[in-house]
Amino acid sequence: MVAPSPGYSITIRVQAPATFTATSDLAAAVAQTGAQVTALDVVNSSHDHMVIDVSANAANTDHLDEIKAALEKLDDVEVQKVSDRTFLMHLGGKISIEPKVPLRNRDDLSRAYTPGVARVCQAIAENKDDARRLTVKRNTVAVVTDGSAVLGLGNIGPEAALPVMEGKAALFKQFADVDAWPVCLDTQDTEEIISIVKALAPVYGGVNLEDIAAPRCFEIEDRLREELDIPIFHDDQHGTAIVTVAALQNALRVVNKNIEDVRIVVSGVGAAGHAIIQLLVASGAKNIIPVARGGALVRGEKYDDPHRAWLAENTNPEAFSGSLKEAMVGSDVFIGVSAPNVLDEADIESMNDGAIVFAMANPVPEVDPIAAAKHAAVVATGRSDFPNQINNVLAFPGFFRGLLDASASDITQEMLLAAAEAIASRVSEEQLNPGFIIPSVFDPTVAEAVATAVADVAQR
Amino acid sequence: MVAPSPGYSITIRVQAPATFTATSDLAAAVAQTGAQVTALDVVNSSHDHMVIDVSANAANTDHLDEIKAALEKLDDVEVQKVSDRTFLMHLGGKISIEPKVPLRNRDDLSRAYTPGVARVCQAIAENKDDARRLTVKRNTVAVVTDGSAVLGLGNIGPEAALPVMEGKAALFKQFADVDAWPVCLDTQDTEEIISIVKALAPVYGGVNLEDIAAPRCFEIEDRLREELDIPIFHDDQHGTAIVTVAALQNALRVVNKNIEDVRIVVSGVGAAGHAIIQLLVASGAKNIIPVARGGALVRGEKYDDPHRAWLAENTNPEAFSGSLKEAMVGSDVFIGVSAPNVLDEADIESMNDGAIVFAMANPVPEVDPIAAAKHAAVVATGRSDFPNQINNVLAFPGFFRGLLDASASDITQEMLLAAAEAIASRVSEEQLNPGFIIPSVFDPTVAEAVATAVADVAQR
Repeated sequence: MVAPSPGYSITIRVQAPATFTATSDLAAAVAQTGAQVTALDVVNSSHDHMVIDVSANAANTDHLDEIKAALEKLDDVEVQKVSDRTFLMHLGGKISIEPKVPLRNRDDLSRAYTPGVARVCQAIAENKDDARRLTVKRNTVAVVTDGSAVLGLGNIGPEAALPVMEGKAALFKQFADVDAWPVCLDTQDTEEIISIVKALAPVYGGVNLEDIAAPRCFEIEDRLREELDIPIFHDDQHGTAIVTVAALQNALRVVNKNIEDVRIVVSGVGAAGHAIIQLLVASGAKNIIPVARGGALVRGEKYDDPHRAWLAENTNPEAFSGSLKEAMVGSDVFIGVSAPNVLDEADIESMNDGAIVFAMANPVPEVDPIAAAKHAAVVATGRSDFPNQINNVLAFPGFFRGLLDASASDITQEMLLAAAEAIASRVSEEQLNPGFIIPSVFDPTVAEAVATAVADVAQR
Repeated sequence: MVAPSPGYSITIRVQAPATFTATSDLAAAVAQTGAQVTALDVVNSSHDHMVIDVSANAANTDHLDEIKAALEKLDDVEVQKVSDRTFLMHLGGKISIEPKVPLRNRDDLSRAYTPGVARVCQAIAENKDDARRLTVKRNTVAVVTDGSAVLGLGNIGPEAALPVMEGKAALFKQFADVDAWPVCLDTQDTEEIISIVKALAPVYGGVNLEDIAAPRCFEIEDRLREELDIPIFHDDQHGTAIVTVAALQNALRVVNKNIEDVRIVVSGVGAAGHAIIQLLVASGAKNIIPVARGGALVRGEKYDDPHRAWLAENTNPEAFSGSLKEAMVGSDVFIGVSAPNVLDEADIESMNDGAIVFAMANPVPEVDPIAAAKHAAVVATGRSDFPNQINNVLAFPGFFRGLLDASASDITQEMLLAAAEAIASRVSEEQLNPGFIIPSVFDPTVAEAVATAVADVAQR
């Protein structure tokens, strides 16, 4: 059911008999597991046997084992070595720190280091703001996590979170020339995280909070916003909200509906759901039904969590009460940031005509997108192997580029909205269709458009 | 008195009359201030005037102003713009963060980021040690400061310390391919610094403490050594001690004395002095007299500071009591890590024949090195404009290269001594002379020799 992905690609070195059909037998065995054969390279050949590198994409970890087993089952075939191409790519980490200044001779050294550097230090000691001009602070973002809610993997800790933060740093540079550094903290204490990020702030022009569990992430973000003079962005909230609202703007153009008129069901009221709803409200949405695991949040009910209480007070004007499935009936938009397979085809069928379904749970969406597409007018997911991928990479690099360019000290809803509109605008009227509501992550104009929009708002 | 340095280099754009002697008048005026003219570039010329860029090295900040004033005093000369080449070099910071993996297409993205990265995260979650293989931890060092004792500038704070830490990071990469990242902390609380560095540790394979005031630096180092499983190096202590002992080994070869026999006066018992004395003891020195501001430390006296108490107990076997000047009489080696001009020519004259003088206070040494050279056999300083520069750049890059290569979890005196010997050994018997006891910082074989020596000890 799940398609093979280059994220699960292996190269298996096998020794096979030197027969006419040997390579095709290997390819057939791999293909029969549902994997995608990407290459067959003969490494060595003799009269009686060959050594062949079989490269293939699998769907998941179990599938990798299946492929190996399928090859081992063949007559006279011996698996010598399995290389996982994803692991090979991560060896030694994915980012490096490089000097931007020459250090070839004594003159270079006297300027970049002692004695020359002392004057630069003194200038900053006299005027702290000069740090933005004379140091890396100007272009540098901390990617901060405590490893408590990493991807779909949960609380795996700071060491295991590092590959994600490095990947993020690499994307920051690649897409928007932002220097980003991973800060993976060996503590999950809210107060300690806050005081550490405050202590680290002199080096950074902004902070990107990442994969920190709710509700801790809210408190950390709120407090750091109050107590620091650099912008604090929580990608799981703001990045997701920007891209979701961008996609929704274009999806509404496709179905010819207005955001003021539609009934929007949001499944999931954690960090992402909360931020999406707030940005939807800022975009003019009037009828949003937030649905938690226990059902819709309703005005008048008592909620211990202040975020849920806010949602109940400020959304769901019809005071709809009931389950997610009940909420879906007659709705126009479904936005899921919750759990796999909470809906089925019938639930999508129960929506209004011209339904929009964003099923963003990862890696398994809230509803099978192929089944959903039978009834909805537009379907989007968080996955790269379906059309309309809602991917934060469209937002965070350009967003920080704009913040840094404007030396912004804070983030406003207006900036988030400007970023969403900038992303939406990169799909032209001619390009727009149900399968293309959001630009490609490799569209080089997106980050720049986002940066300009954000910097414009910041400078006003 | 102080020589011009490229660390104080400016380019002054002036408009001068279009006469035959105009450029030579400019050069003469600059040279008369004691500056070193490095270039005269005609930017623009017409019948009645010329625009000329005058580049020069000055001795210090006041001197820069003097040069400008000297030019303005010339007839018909108008200063248009002063560019400080050191500041230009620091604009936007001196290091950047770069992706090491391609991110050109969807396949790259699936491997470096989601979904592929999840498998790498899971592998580390199952076995934390894999972080050394699959992340930047393998090659990355935190350069940690609280900005409390930066160069000779004192307590200038974390923002103002950043240019030094960036310079250090650039040197780490340039000389030993180590990725180093500046951590400038906005706190000077010992316990807070300790807990922050502990929380940051997952990303790093080692910690380089830098420019943290004594005695705080001792406590921080000791505690982090106990509580973390990555090596903690305090460059002001260990780096300085390594290079000083390396230089002393070769200086003793020049004067044909043994370390066991010489009487060594160490002026300054702060972080550097303490570490130097400890490494001298480990090298076999028997007669070391530690001298603080109030005079020699003597056994039996009461010292509140436990580091001073240790020195009094473990050195100065003759229980010499008296001032620095008194201690100098009849000594063989002077090592100064204290304050400018605490000695004069007569003090050096009072030493034994074949005296060795390391006057390392920066930028102004304990004794004028030119005066000292009239009586001492070997003179070294911390400055680049005299022979025999005792420069930590010789030690820290290779030292950490060795630690990281060996996945070392701790630093031992044996490693420090091995590093000192490796540095000393890069001056061959043929090269050795009173003006060349220590290799050049640009000798590309030094870092490698240090790394190999340190890794060998670590692996034993």
